[in-house]
This record gives sequence, C-alpha cells and structure tokens, in this order.
Amino acid sequence: MDGRVLVPWEQNRDNAAAALRVDVYDGDSEPPADLSDVTFYVVPYARRQAVGLLERMPRLRAVQLLTAGYEHVLDVLPEGVELCNARGLHDASTAEHAVALTLAAQRELPRWADDQRRHVWRPHFTRSLADSRVLIVGYGSIGAAIEARLRPFETEVVRLARRARPDSGVHGIEELHRLLGAADIVVVVTPHTPETEGLIGAEELALLRDDALVVNVGRGPVIDTAALIAEKGRVRAALDVTDPEPPPADHPLWEAPGVYLTPHVAGGSAAFYPRARRFVDEQLRRWAAGEPLRNRVRPGAG
Amino acid sequence: MDGRVLVPWEQNRDNAAAALRVDVYDGDSEPPADLSDVTFYVVPYARRQAVGLLERMPRLRAVQLLTAGYEHVLDVLPEGVELCNARGLHDASTAEHAVALTLAAQRELPRWADDQRRHVWRPHFTRSLADSRVLIVGYGSIGAAIEARLRPFETEVVRLARRARPDSGVHGIEELHRLLGAADIVVVVTPHTPETEGLIGAEELALLRDDALVVNVGRGPVIDTAALIAEKGRVRAALDVTDPEPPPADHPLWEAPGVYLTPHVAGGSAAFYPRARRFVDEQLRRWAAGEPLRNRVRPGAG
Ligand SMILES: NC(=O)c1ccc[n+]([C@@H]2O[C@H](COP(=O)([O-])OP(=O)(O)OC[C@H]3O[C@@H](n4cnc5c(N)ncnc54)[C@H](OP(=O)(O)O)[C@@H]3O)[C@@H](O)[C@H]2O)c1
Ligand SMILES: NC(=O)c1ccc[n+]([C@@H]2O[C@H](COP(=O)([O-])OP(=O)(O)OC[C@H]3O[C@@H](n4cnc5c(N)ncnc54)[C@H](OP(=O)(O)O)[C@@H]3O)[C@@H](O)[C@H]2O)c1
Repeated sequence: MDGRVLVPWEQNRDNAAAALRVDVYDGDSEPPADLSDVTFYVVPYARRQAVGLLERMPRLRAVQLLTAGYEHVLDVLPEGVELCNARGLHDASTAEHAVALTLAAQRELPRWADDQRRHVWRPHFTRSLADSRVLIVGYGSIGAAIEARLRPFETEVVRLARRARPDSGVHGIEELHRLLGAADIVVVVTPHTPETEGLIGAEELALLRDDALVVNVGRGPVIDTAALIAEKGRVRAALDVTDPEPPPADHPLWEAPGVYLTPHVAGGSAAFYPRARRFVDEQLRRWAAGEPLRNRVRPGAG
Repeated sequence: MDGRVLVPWEQNRDNAAAALRVDVYDGDSEPPADLSDVTFYVVPYARRQAVGLLERMPRLRAVQLLTAGYEHVLDVLPEGVELCNARGLHDASTAEHAVALTLAAQRELPRWADDQRRHVWRPHFTRSLADSRVLIVGYGSIGAAIEARLRPFETEVVRLARRARPDSGVHGIEELHRLLGAADIVVVVTPHTPETEGLIGAEELALLRDDALVVNVGRGPVIDTAALIAEKGRVRAALDVTDPEPPPADHPLWEAPGVYLTPHVAGGSAAFYPRARRFVDEQLRRWAAGEPLRNRVRPGAG
C-alpha cells in the first residue's frame, strides 16, 4: 500500500491497519507541509478551506466528504479521483430533531417555555403525537430513520417518495394530494431539486386538515413560505430549514402564528461525530484491504 | 343484569351490551334526577363534583375512576363497593411527554424558541439523545412505555424499580447510587411516597456527571428542589412536576439555569380520551358478562 492517507481524527489513525501510512489533519491545525504522496483524503467536516488542499495532492485517488452534499467539490476534483459522501451519517441526528420538532409542536413546548419566562403556571390539555397519521414526504435514508423513531409513539406512518415502491409500502409522488388530505402531520425531508421546489404550496396546504402540522427538515424551498404564512395558523409548522434562509430580521415568518423555527441544526448534533469516526475507520479498513469504498457518488479511474 | 350504569361518554352507551341499562353523565350537564338504581358508576374525568353523586347511589356496587390516584375517593366510598382506577390510561400521554422533554433539553428547543422571539438565527452544535445512557427511576407501567419510545433513538436504557427483578433486567433501589454515576439522562417516574420523597437529593445529584439531565414526570417531591437549584446548572433538568407545585411567582426554580418547566401536563393530552373510552367499553363488556373488572384497587363485597 503506497501513498499516504489524511484523516480528521486521531482515532482513525490509531485504528488503521499497520500497513497504512496515516496522518491527521483536523482542518484547524496547520496541514502537513508535503501532501504530494496523499492518495486518500478524508476532508474535515465543515471546514471550507480544507477542500483547497486538493490541488496540492497530485497522486490523489479518492476523497471522502463528511457532508451529504458534494456539488461544491465536483469543480475542483481532478478527473479520475473517486468521490464518497456522508449519506447516512446525519440520519440519527436529523431524524431525532424531526421527532423533537414534532413532539414540541404537539405538546406546545414553546408555549410552556414562554410561560416559564413569565413565571406563569397555566396547564391545559394539549394535542398529542399518539394516534396521529404521519405522512413522510421523501422516504429515503433519513425518512426511514424518522419512521423507526415515530412508530412506538402509537402513530400510523405513511411513506412517500419520488417513485412508488409497492413492495415496501412506499407511495409515489403522484399520490401526494390524496395523502395530504388524510394526514395529521406531514414531515418533509426531500432534497432541494427543480421538482421539489414549492412541492408544498398553496394548493397542497389547502388540502390539509385544520390544525395539521407540517415539519420540514429537508430544504427550505420545498415549502412555499408565502403560502404557509397565508394560512394564518390554520396549518401549523415546525421548520428547521426556511426560504429564505436565514429569514431577514423583518421577515413575517418569525412571527407567523403556529410556526416554530430552529436554525438548521437538525444534522448538527453530538450524534454526528461518533458515527462519522466509525464510518471513516471502516472506509480505511476497506482501503487497506483493497475493497470498494462505501457511499461512492463518483467513480475513480479504475 | 339489574340496575343502571352511568358512563361519561355516548360511545360507551352506544357500544354497551343490549342487556345493560346505560345513562350518560359527562360531569358538566345535569346528572339524572334519580340515581337510586345505579350499580356501576364511571366517574367523569377531572370533575371534582362528580364524586359527590356517590351518596345518591344506595345500590352502588362498583366505581371506575379515570385517574390513577384514588385516595380522594376512599373516604366517601361506602363499604363493599369495588373501586377501579385508571392505571395504564395515561401511559401513552405521559411517556410521550417525558421523551418530548428529554429531546427538547438535548436539542435546546427552548433556546431556539427564545431566538425566534428575538428574530435571531444563530445555529450551533447541540447535544443529542442518541448514544445516551438513560436511567429510568421507577420502571413501572409508564417507565416501560418511556423505554419503548426511547429505544429506536439509539440509546441504552437502564431500568430501576423498588425491588430488583433480575429476570427482566430491572435493578433494585439499592443500586441507585452506582447507576446514577453512569447515566447521561435520568428519568424519574415514581409515585410520591414516604420512601421516594427526596429520593434525588444533594448526594444523588452530586453523583451525576457534569451536564447530565434529570427529567421528572413522576411527582415533584421526589427531587429535592433546593438541592437541584444549588447545582447551578451543572446538572440540567426538565420538570413536569415540581415541589412546591406550582412554584410561587418569586420562586428561584423559574430562573434556575438549565431548568425547563412544564405545568404538570404530561398525562393530560389528546392521547388520553380514546384510550379511556376504549377502556370503559371493555369494563362494561366485563360487567355485562359478569367477569372481574380490570384495574381493581379495592375489592367489592363479593
Ligand atoms: N436539516 C438538516 O440539518 C439536514 C440534515 C441532513 C439532510 N438534510 C436534507 O434531507 C434530505 C434527505 O436526505 P436523505 O439522506 O434521506 O436522502 P435520500 O436517502 O436520498 O432520500 C431522499 C428522498 O427524497 C425523495 N425525493 C426526491 N425527489 C422527490 C420528489 N420530487 N418528490 C418526492 N420525493 C422525492 C427520494 O425519493 P426516491 O427514493 O424515489 O428517489 C428519497 O426518498 C437531504 O437531501 C438534505 O436536503 C437536512
Ligand atoms: N406528570 C403527570 O402528568 C403524570 C401522569 C401520570 C402519572 N404520573 C406519576 O407517575 C407515577 C408512576 O405511574 P405508573 O403508572 O408507571 O405507576 P406504576 O406502574 O405503579 O410504577 C411505579 C414504579 O415506581 C417504582 N417505585 C415505587 N417506589 C419506589 C422507590 N421507593 N424507589 C424506586 N422505585 C420505586 C415502582 O417499583 P416496584 O415495581 O418495584 O414497585 C414501579 O416500578 C404515578 O404514581 C404518578 O405519580 C404523573
């Protein structure tokens, strides 16, 4: 195994096969002076400048990202270099936040926080998550993780993706309108694409029951913000992603009735790091053994 | 089947066996003028005055409450009348709220609510529930429901009750101190008894890791409020029940760092009613068939 591997965490170096030459670069410290023999580069998480090192790696054969998105790397990645992304590594964190938002909205946690701030104890009966029919729009990797967490809450989960997969009970996008009308809660977790932009607009919101809840942990533009605000609280919402993002300080979304916001933090929690470190360990094991890497989004030279 | 049955919901009358004579009394409307032939009384939920009707029921043989507590009825219940409580009917609602509080504290939802109020978008990495070791203190009916909901969040759940039940992995109270030191999150869900009062005091809190979270959906006096406040945020807390309850407006608990409060609303959500109505249907079926009632907390005359 010639060449060198650059990883973000000590753990990855310590766990690597003895045959591998491994250096640590965490994205904050100074990178090694000589990168000319790096063949596999695991780019540190959320460090923009870390991508810039690519041009100093003439023998590079594979790049591992710790984000799901990879569009920002395609332009600077030389021909023939294999690219892997972080699909799955944010599932636990993002699914957990989706359920947190859902429970908070049903059990009115922001109201109780407000009452606490004013030293007011004013109990009343709330909605619950139990007995709700939850429609997951974008039943992929994170959608399945959300379903697993929702099921013991005595809910009914309905799955929807782009294409129907009847064998696994997944409805296709052509059934969206019919399914919206029967849902108590809609969890949106699709990527932002030309097809998903405005997927939940005025027409779709109008199909929802009074007091239905829309949760968005996918991408802001999938929901039409103006249409949501025009519902004036008839439909509630809990949004981790918004359009525009962030909303300017004078944007009406901040004060829209029945709308709760969190600042795009679903994927970014303590759940991420151990999963990412374990994943990098496993990729290094495959690299050392000459096995194909996981999560390949662009093949290498061969 | 002689005598009459008094139930709180139309559904119970509609679903009752034809042989039963059933009247509806919801606790708000005027009760039937003549109660002298009532033999089975299902007391409407959270209607204090409803208990007063007992003295107008000379032929009463059984009373069904819709609360778990029944101490308030023992004094006014004539000898020989069977008493049943609502054990289990609040499990879904209370367990759901316990998980909502846990997630809210880990993912800092009250902070995001505060930021929204001030139109501020300031993301940062949060704790998560995933990978946490959760100790359930009071692993009974609600505790088991909490565990079922926590498990898919990739947590480790540790069970503790009064007496150890090694066959089902339940630790006894004598292991409390040892287990506290290894917990990231402690969920308290015991009743208030002489033994549980102050169960989590200064000594127990001191055993917890820095930044551990204590959730209480049991009864306020199980945690020593002064000791919790003295932790000054080293240990965090999310409390649905408090001591005193409610805290007076000038009580330091309202502003204690790292402490979130909800006003004893865990059991009181929309999840309760359908479960309670179904349970009353089932009790009526048993009553009509001459089978023993469920949830008996005091036997009848024979
Ligand atoms: N808020 C956060 O912090 C955060 C964190 C991580 C990820 N995310 C977002 O979550 C998204 C989903 O992540 P993932 O890992 O679950 O991706 P994934 O496994 O690729 O799943 C995406 C799902 O969306 C569906 N989909 C795509 N276009 C659609 C359309 N036009 N109509 C209906 N469904 C459509 C796909 O359907 P098919 O299966 O039929 O293709 C698939 O089921 C990411 O793209 C990202 O935008 C947000
Ligand atoms: N916040 C709310 O709105 C709300 C709603 C409903 C109920 N609650 C509270 O939740 C409590 C539990 O309800 P449940 O239906 O789960 O009751 P349960 O099934 O009787 O369970 C109570 C558990 O507490 C344990 N326990 C009792 N004394 C203990 C002690 N000294 N040390 C350690 N564990 C002890 C019991 O242990 P053993 O099994 O060994 O006896 C049992 O596991 C109720 O009593 C009520 O106070 C609150």
